[in-house]
Amino acid sequence: MLSQKHLLGLEKATKRDIEQILDTAESFKEIIDRDVKKVPTLRGKSVVNLFYEPSTRTRTSFELAGKYLSADTINFSSSGSSVQKGESLKDTAKTLEMMGIDAVVIRHSSSGAAEFLSRHVSAKVINAGDGTHEHPTQALLDMLTVREKKGTLSGFKVAILGDILHSRVARSNIFGFTKMGSEVYVAGPQTLMPREIEKMGAKVAKNMDEAIDGADVVMALRIQLERQKKGLFPSQREYSRLFGIDKKRLSLAKPDALLLHPGPVNRGVEISSEIMDGSQSVINEQVKSGVAIRMAVLYLLIGGARQ
Amino acid sequence: MLSQKHLLGLEKATKRDIEQILDTAESFKEIIDRDVKKVPTLRGKSVVNLFYEPSTRTRTSFELAGKYLSADTINFSSSGSSVQKGESLKDTAKTLEMMGIDAVVIRHSSSGAAEFLSRHVSAKVINAGDGTHEHPTQALLDMLTVREKKGTLSGFKVAILGDILHSRVARSNIFGFTKMGSEVYVAGPQTLMPREIEKMGAKVAKNMDEAIDGADVVMALRIQLERQKKGLFPSQREYSRLFGIDKKRLSLAKPDALLLHPGPVNRGVEISSEIMDGSQSVINEQVKSGVAIRMAVLYLLIGGARQ
Amino acid sequence: MLSQKHLLGLEKATKRDIEQILDTAESFKEIIDRDVKKVPTLRGKSVVNLFYEPSTRTRTSFELAGKYLSADTINFSSSGSSVQKGESLKDTAKTLEMMGIDAVVIRHSSSGAAEFLSRHVSAKVINAGDGTHEHPTQALLDMLTVREKKGTLSGFKVAILGDILHSRVARSNIFGFTKMGSEVYVAGPQTLMPREIEKMGAKVAKNMDEAIDGADVVMALRIQLERQKKGLFPSQREYSRLFGIDKKRLSLAKPDALLLHPGPVNRGVEISSEIMDGSQSVINEQVKSGVAIRMAVLYLLIGGARQ
Repeated sequence: MLSQKHLLGLEKATKRDIEQILDTAESFKEIIDRDVKKVPTLRGKSVVNLFYEPSTRTRTSFELAGKYLSADTINFSSSGSSVQKGESLKDTAKTLEMMGIDAVVIRHSSSGAAEFLSRHVSAKVINAGDGTHEHPTQALLDMLTVREKKGTLSGFKVAILGDILHSRVARSNIFGFTKMGSEVYVAGPQTLMPREIEKMGAKVAKNMDEAIDGADVVMALRIQLERQKKGLFPSQREYSRLFGIDKKRLSLAKPDALLLHPGPVNRGVEISSEIMDGSQSVINEQVKSGVAIRMAVLYLLIGGARQ
Repeated sequence: MLSQKHLLGLEKATKRDIEQILDTAESFKEIIDRDVKKVPTLRGKSVVNLFYEPSTRTRTSFELAGKYLSADTINFSSSGSSVQKGESLKDTAKTLEMMGIDAVVIRHSSSGAAEFLSRHVSAKVINAGDGTHEHPTQALLDMLTVREKKGTLSGFKVAILGDILHSRVARSNIFGFTKMGSEVYVAGPQTLMPREIEKMGAKVAKNMDEAIDGADVVMALRIQLERQKKGLFPSQREYSRLFGIDKKRLSLAKPDALLLHPGPVNRGVEISSEIMDGSQSVINEQVKSGVAIRMAVLYLLIGGARQ
Repeated sequence: MLSQKHLLGLEKATKRDIEQILDTAESFKEIIDRDVKKVPTLRGKSVVNLFYEPSTRTRTSFELAGKYLSADTINFSSSGSSVQKGESLKDTAKTLEMMGIDAVVIRHSSSGAAEFLSRHVSAKVINAGDGTHEHPTQALLDMLTVREKKGTLSGFKVAILGDILHSRVARSNIFGFTKMGSEVYVAGPQTLMPREIEKMGAKVAKNMDEAIDGADVVMALRIQLERQKKGLFPSQREYSRLFGIDKKRLSLAKPDALLLHPGPVNRGVEISSEIMDGSQSVINEQVKSGVAIRMAVLYLLIGGARQ
């Protein structure tokens, strides 16, 4: 039903693809609030979480999405596995496909890993984050959360703030929000601003305040110390002072602006505890949207008969 | 149905609560012996095992309890997770709740972690061991095992032996057995005897033999080397000689006294292999009771419609 | 239905046992290709994967086999578990049995671990690899793959090549193929050729080429560096040159000979990439056969009422 066979990123997704995923997710979201969170939609389908980077949050979100739709879910982490024995990504994925897996949810430290995989298996591939490339389900859940609160995704000023260079979340959101008709401004440490960012459709603001000024959506990125090289990055304290978002800074945005963060939040670093727990924050709602988006993507990719 | 919304410990549980859990567990126990160990009671409910301390036994017991009742179960261990990325317990739990989790089974090294969590989420919290505080399902399974063998829980002399200071199992059992009308005597290394133990309702015996003398229930505790500071504790060999229970020492108890241990047993340290495999030992039965107790607790806390 | 209560190895299996497992697996194999890979055969049964050695491939294969038959599956790895706390294999297994587990799938570094376990629990034990002893489901899946391609298992020359000394796969295949009426030739580094190999029914070829000459089945073994002592083994490069199988070497076999490998393959070491991906390779098919064999074994051992 989607124009793509896999979900590798939003760069090549059409506006129609995004709308279809959001509409489907919206219809699934109420399942999460039910007393009986179980529909038989994907009964007899099997999904593997192939995670080469640790991420219990995203993995759990996909696992629950699968279970709520009655799919069988398998976790296949790189530790203690064939991966340690030197098996290649391609051979691992082929093996899983031969075992009857319908969808491979992959997280990998190499940009392009999901796309690579999609060329070598007939199972459907869902990118759960590949290097600094894309993390499409995160951007989709951000968009779902905004659309539910605002009723639309067009005509907004979206500010994405922090470590743009290493952020696959930023990239997917830039592709997504611009396709839906909004403008995306980015700001953060200059050393962490990739040169080609404007080619992706984003506007580079002079500073944090300019990016946030009049914004409808304020999205702080997680600082990922594990992914940064020494010296590129100020200390957490310094980061908080220069690039952290607090009540005062958030007040530059529109009064009804939404505050997003992909989580887990370093409280007091990227955003202050006060606004994280405040009325503009939709961070908890993002988590719920995440399960709904993953249900939708699984359903749209493997819901019917096998091709 | 219980007087408490969560199961944090037995200190505040009523006698009625305990009886209700035991009665429910008794009715579930036969499921474990069936050819088809599956009832639809918790279909569409989801339970997360949030374990910050390793414990495959307890985790597996909860996992099977959930599965036998048709709940979806998710394991969320602290390694390789958001926890490593610095996410707080509260934010982790809130995240899980937003994903639709109905119950959080938590094991944590900090006393009070379960109670803390219960103040911040609306999902039901089940304490699977918090620091040196409580481990209520362990005490409940001990009581279920004794009640099944003896027909009642009142009027007994219960001897709890070993490292009382660090034992959440001891504390929960002291609260539980005294509420049900039995007397609890404790004995063990003096350095491991907390001062406030008598305020909890236990009697401190002069030595091991006095505690065991005429007892109906003899419960050895596991020595948990990982939790002890240097010097507090004799060597395993020394421990065995001074505080280990063998056939001779057990013979001080009533002839039909039951021998319990929360497991895993260090054979030859806390108790001799001979009596561990002997006719008075109900250690294997305790394991089965454990699954039944966890089924009962899950059922009583999340069995109905969400509040 | 099998002559054995457990599946510990093929040494004591009868030809009839093997045929029954293969026939059952064949009937299950089509389930893996279905849109809805789910039959209720083992609903309410529970299977534990008790893995003391890391192996995500085999563990996943058993896990999916269980799920496709609607069994509950539990993973119990030795890290972060009671095992670390010093619990014995026997006590761990007894504990799992008391929790209602119907089958224990065990992988262990000690030869004889599965057999040991079978003497101490009433749950059914399936050997998923014990030391250098046996790995029966691997041999069964090899035989299923060959039988499907060739229509029979008798009258063949089977060449097993590589590190025979440490290979439980080799041993199980020698027992299996000879029982079914084929001849097994082995070749590999002389230092890795156990003296008693001919007593098992295999013929030791003078060199690789003699073993492969005219063979119907060519099976390369994985070199398991983790299991070898220093000095016993040539470097990967040296190994590849002396004992690796490439197109030229494979051409010594019959033109329609099948190429097998238990996986994961060290591409370019045991076999060249060219023939691994070539028309004689049935390595991917082996993976699918593996799930079917494990479904069959679970079904035959725990499919009926409990004894």
